[in-house]
Amino acid sequence: MASSDKAVTKPPRGTRDFLPSELYRRQYAAGVIRDVYLAHGFQPLETPTYERLDTLTGKYGDEGDQLMFKILHRGQTLVDGIRAAQEHLQTPGNVVVGRSGETAPGAERLLSDLGLRYDLTVPLARVVAEYSGKLPPVFKRFQIQPVWRADTPGKARYREFVQCDVDVVGSTSLLVEAEVSGAVAACFRQLGVHDLEIRINHRALLRAFIDKAGIPVERETEAIVAIDKLDKVGPDGVQRELAEKGMSDESSQALMSLVMGGDDLERVKEAMADHAAGAAAVEELAQVIALSAMTPADGRLVFDPTLARGLGYYTGCIFEIRVPDLGSSLGGGGRYDGLVGMFCGREIPACGFSIGFDRLLFVMEQRGLFPEGLGAPDVLVASTEKKREADVLRVAYQLRQEGLRVEIVAKAEKAGRMRKLADDRGIQAAVLLRKDQDQVNVWRRSAPEVTDRMVAISELSSALR
Amino acid sequence: MASSDKAVTKPPRGTRDFLPSELYRRQYAAGVIRDVYLAHGFQPLETPTYERLDTLTGKYGDEGDQLMFKILHRGQTLVDGIRAAQEHLQTPGNVVVGRSGETAPGAERLLSDLGLRYDLTVPLARVVAEYSGKLPPVFKRFQIQPVWRADTPGKARYREFVQCDVDVVGSTSLLVEAEVSGAVAACFRQLGVHDLEIRINHRALLRAFIDKAGIPVERETEAIVAIDKLDKVGPDGVQRELAEKGMSDESSQALMSLVMGGDDLERVKEAMADHAAGAAAVEELAQVIALSAMTPADGRLVFDPTLARGLGYYTGCIFEIRVPDLGSSLGGGGRYDGLVGMFCGREIPACGFSIGFDRLLFVMEQRGLFPEGLGAPDVLVASTEKKREADVLRVAYQLRQEGLRVEIVAKAEKAGRMRKLADDRGIQAAVLLRKDQDQVNVWRRSAPEVTDRMVAISELSSALR
Repeated sequence: MASSDKAVTKPPRGTRDFLPSELYRRQYAAGVIRDVYLAHGFQPLETPTYERLDTLTGKYGDEGDQLMFKILHRGQTLVDGIRAAQEHLQTPGNVVVGRSGETAPGAERLLSDLGLRYDLTVPLARVVAEYSGKLPPVFKRFQIQPVWRADTPGKARYREFVQCDVDVVGSTSLLVEAEVSGAVAACFRQLGVHDLEIRINHRALLRAFIDKAGIPVERETEAIVAIDKLDKVGPDGVQRELAEKGMSDESSQALMSLVMGGDDLERVKEAMADHAAGAAAVEELAQVIALSAMTPADGRLVFDPTLARGLGYYTGCIFEIRVPDLGSSLGGGGRYDGLVGMFCGREIPACGFSIGFDRLLFVMEQRGLFPEGLGAPDVLVASTEKKREADVLRVAYQLRQEGLRVEIVAKAEKAGRMRKLADDRGIQAAVLLRKDQDQVNVWRRSAPEVTDRMVAISELSSALR
Repeated sequence: MASSDKAVTKPPRGTRDFLPSELYRRQYAAGVIRDVYLAHGFQPLETPTYERLDTLTGKYGDEGDQLMFKILHRGQTLVDGIRAAQEHLQTPGNVVVGRSGETAPGAERLLSDLGLRYDLTVPLARVVAEYSGKLPPVFKRFQIQPVWRADTPGKARYREFVQCDVDVVGSTSLLVEAEVSGAVAACFRQLGVHDLEIRINHRALLRAFIDKAGIPVERETEAIVAIDKLDKVGPDGVQRELAEKGMSDESSQALMSLVMGGDDLERVKEAMADHAAGAAAVEELAQVIALSAMTPADGRLVFDPTLARGLGYYTGCIFEIRVPDLGSSLGGGGRYDGLVGMFCGREIPACGFSIGFDRLLFVMEQRGLFPEGLGAPDVLVASTEKKREADVLRVAYQLRQEGLRVEIVAKAEKAGRMRKLADDRGIQAAVLLRKDQDQVNVWRRSAPEVTDRMVAISELSSALR
């Protein structure tokens, strides 16, 4: 503790308190997204804040295992765990953090059996395995919940942040790609973001590029990881990385010219004419773009052969959401037919998007897209006389029954102070109870003028409409 | 792991997955409560899932410190912590679990610096201390968020459960007691629970009872804790406990006759005529009951001199929410002027309610109070011909633009199967695209009859209204 006795009252590092003014905005955006997804036939899902470590470990790579928040054992299990962990640390070569594939578990695994939710995909996979009989054969779900990663916090990087996922599980139809893109585009449009671009590429096309460039199939992931850095390091950087990984200059140049040859789908179609898998991928891309013309994503899908999406698990179309005024993406997604079945022991097709909720809010903030007066009460009711304090409750009750949001002031105040309170909360009208039993003062801000007049209580609601 | 290779896919012990059908109900109830609180001028607040252990420890008694979920240190801090924890365990007399007031911290404190939220009051107190300048002088907030307690799970007892709190911070006015009771009563009424009873008592009245019974002031808390068990152990049990604590038979009999003398406020007023603090408490109770007549709690407040509310921190009126068909309470609250200021170093008045969200849902479920068809799409759009699959997207888009919730089927299916899919999801209408380009089949369930007719696509929306 610091030299002062005062307790630290900031939220923990990398987390945030959401005070009302900010929360109204978050709830507004989440509500719009929810309504759009419901209109598209998606169903909500919520899973527990923590999962078994068995469920989580090894699903996000070494980095994921390290950044996961883990929950301490309780009681005697903890005592035993501490002893075992100490022994584990004394054994040469043992590490603290459990790594995927490691046979001797890390010290953390001796002290913990639960971890905070790290993404929304692994919980979805667990739910699909557990409730297969209770879910529809094609399960369209959306999930808007926080996840936690013990990353170094920074500007707009938090340890607790909201993910907003939408996925279709159980169908291989390309209508699914069009449906999820359309739903995502509809969300953004409904929130006032009309210049959204959904870049689209296909993992099988990237693999065909790599194959045609003469890079062996087992180097595929390395090559895709290198291409994924194009935005950050430029073409020279990518070629340097390919060279470092031992790929020949010839191969890497061939690959770069396929990837960087421009976003004309016809060009790529020709290049893939003699490559069956590549040609099939081009055909799928063309179909998804054509189908999307019948959805809110019409005109928003842009073929981008440089798009790689680093994550290893994609198998078909891949997507990235962009707006002109944000350097990074607002989210992305794609088809990943191998992942959702991880707990079922069989492949289950799936395709979806994840929207970066905090980035979306940042863009909306920058563009002034939040409606005015979100969450503000409609009327403030107050009294200037102590003996009329109780009548405040009665008038407020009456107005609430008519559907108005009513704030009260719980003690007699001067009229000027009441108007300041109304202003501070963005409340556009105030009712002041003075001495006269039947008459009240109605103060109203209807731009440009402000009115202030006496009204009989019986006529109050019409005066406030 | 068990003998089978299949991973455990149940949610962790004491937690739940919320599948769509249940989540619609939870979201419906939470939405109604939110709207009612907003209509009463309360503002939403959300705080992080975890808090510093410094913030949480010692606030909930020994039991709370033990039931708190704690998050493991990361990296080198964890290595150091394990070593220190092992040493700590080897020191005779040391315990694992940190106890409030303990000078040497428990082993847990060496391994952890964060804990999951245990209630919504301590976070509120922290927020009030941190943002005093940004919050209104009287802060009316509601908060609906999960909390976590590592209790033994049981029937309707979970380790992760939702609390639903409403509080007014910063006012000593009795209008506050009436306002929060009114808002709580309005929530229940809006949800269809009309036989709610809000039992009310006053801590100062209980203290006056204890004083008049000749029990010294330093035994007050023990006496209140004993009275709190009246429901469970009966009057004899309470008297036994008072005797065990060393109170005289005369005192405990005097106390019981004051507590058990009946719920007539006049009776208690007479009994307190010669006791200033007791008489003041009676006067406050009478005022709150009178003020509540002007709120949705009209007729719902019932004086109950046996009500004690175990928690130590109440200072004024105390409340408990009851319905006839539930043995336990649905929540409760009261005035607690000493608590919210815990991080500010000064007393801040506060009064509020906490609703047991899961119990409320249980009562609603028992009584069938959830609306029909929550969350169900309005229309299912599907095709019976493969070549018309794509048109499904176009028709769905058209209907969604008219405000309908539309589910699609992403591949051609037989008409019978489509109707089954609609039935399974509770969808009341289906549009089937057949060979004919302009005509579609509209199937509709409008009890008692089911219609099935051909409609031109251009007339579709009027056919579905």
